Amino acid sequence: MAFAMKLIFAPASPFARKVRILIIELGLQDSVTLVDAGAVSPVSNNGDLNSVNPLGMLPALKLDNGDSLSDSPLICEYLNDLADGPFFPSDANRRFRTLGLQALADGMLDLSVALRYETTFRPEQLRWQTWIDFQNEKVQRGLDKLESICNQFEPTPLIGEITVACVLGYLDFRFADLDWRAGRPALTDWFEQIMLLESLANTRPG
Amino acid sequence: MAFAMKLIFAPASPFARKVRILIIELGLQDSVTLVDAGAVSPVSNNGDLNSVNPLGMLPALKLDNGDSLSDSPLICEYLNDLADGPFFPSDANRRFRTLGLQALADGMLDLSVALRYETTFRPEQLRWQTWIDFQNEKVQRGLDKLESICNQFEPTPLIGEITVACVLGYLDFRFADLDWRAGRPALTDWFEQIMLLESLANTRPG
Repeated sequence: MAFAMKLIFAPASPFARKVRILIIELGLQDSVTLVDAGAVSPVSNNGDLNSVNPLGMLPALKLDNGDSLSDSPLICEYLNDLADGPFFPSDANRRFRTLGLQALADGMLDLSVALRYETTFRPEQLRWQTWIDFQNEKVQRGLDKLESICNQFEPTPLIGEITVACVLGYLDFRFADLDWRAGRPALTDWFEQIMLLESLANTRPG
Repeated sequence: MAFAMKLIFAPASPFARKVRILIIELGLQDSVTLVDAGAVSPVSNNGDLNSVNPLGMLPALKLDNGDSLSDSPLICEYLNDLADGPFFPSDANRRFRTLGLQALADGMLDLSVALRYETTFRPEQLRWQTWIDFQNEKVQRGLDKLESICNQFEPTPLIGEITVACVLGYLDFRFADLDWRAGRPALTDWFEQIMLLESLANTRPG
């Protein structure tokens, strides 16, 4: 079965990276054309992107029939369904376990991206240190949680594990000073192993 | 089958409202105890909430077995699954159509809540008008999209329609000046009809 979908993405977007990983893992490279949206920020408009997603957010998937889908967990589930993939299991226990992990990791990504916006796009005199401190604490608590549960991660990654890898990769990319590995040896080892996957190695943010 | 779950919520949270509506629609009122988290803001800590969701975000569901789930779409899907409800259809077309609508509406909620934080919690001298203008435009574009598709909404609401009702209710609650009804007669009529549902009428934000 052939498709002619388009994924609007940005090379630095961790949410788009998750979809790009799924596309590779599901062997859908010939069915989805990647379209680089160029620079996207919370204070710029991109007409092409807005026509696919009125909220102007990445990633956005344009389907064969002209419809579109936004929101990375949804796009991933759609592609997994299309290719009959294993990343969203149907068994309720495994399904909600990996979706719960995905939600935690996506929440950490939301916080991290918001922190990035605050500390780069927002004019310096308008930044709010108290807010920055609270969001940083939340990311740290999320990392501690991941350290405590990563010994229960699936040996063959599901959508939850893939999302965790995208968070850690994003922190390395944008928040190297945060040094998330410090005091988290299990998570450090796990990340080193999962980064051996070609789909992850070939989608490093940049 | 009886459950003893706990939902940590706040009366003003539109994300928590969505879950509260599902609980009523699914007849799970005796299985889920609602626990009011009290005042929650991006710059406050709530130890009880953090112990259930390390990111400190509402709503959070504590399960019988001690595990927890966060993120309103996931909690809703979990409860729907538990009660064998109709709100997340299994047929792929209907499923991705309603999940797409949910994602649009949840995206509008994220933007609206961020706008609310910017214009109330953030100290006045640190607010960024350019950002506020861009986020407002996104919400307006989302509303225009809803106006253009609401004649295709399901007559018996699925999770997508319920989420749309939560956005419109939140805009009425926090952004009455925005006057979302202006120029959107179809959406206005649709909202009036859906608000006749007891589960919606009884969960108005406050």
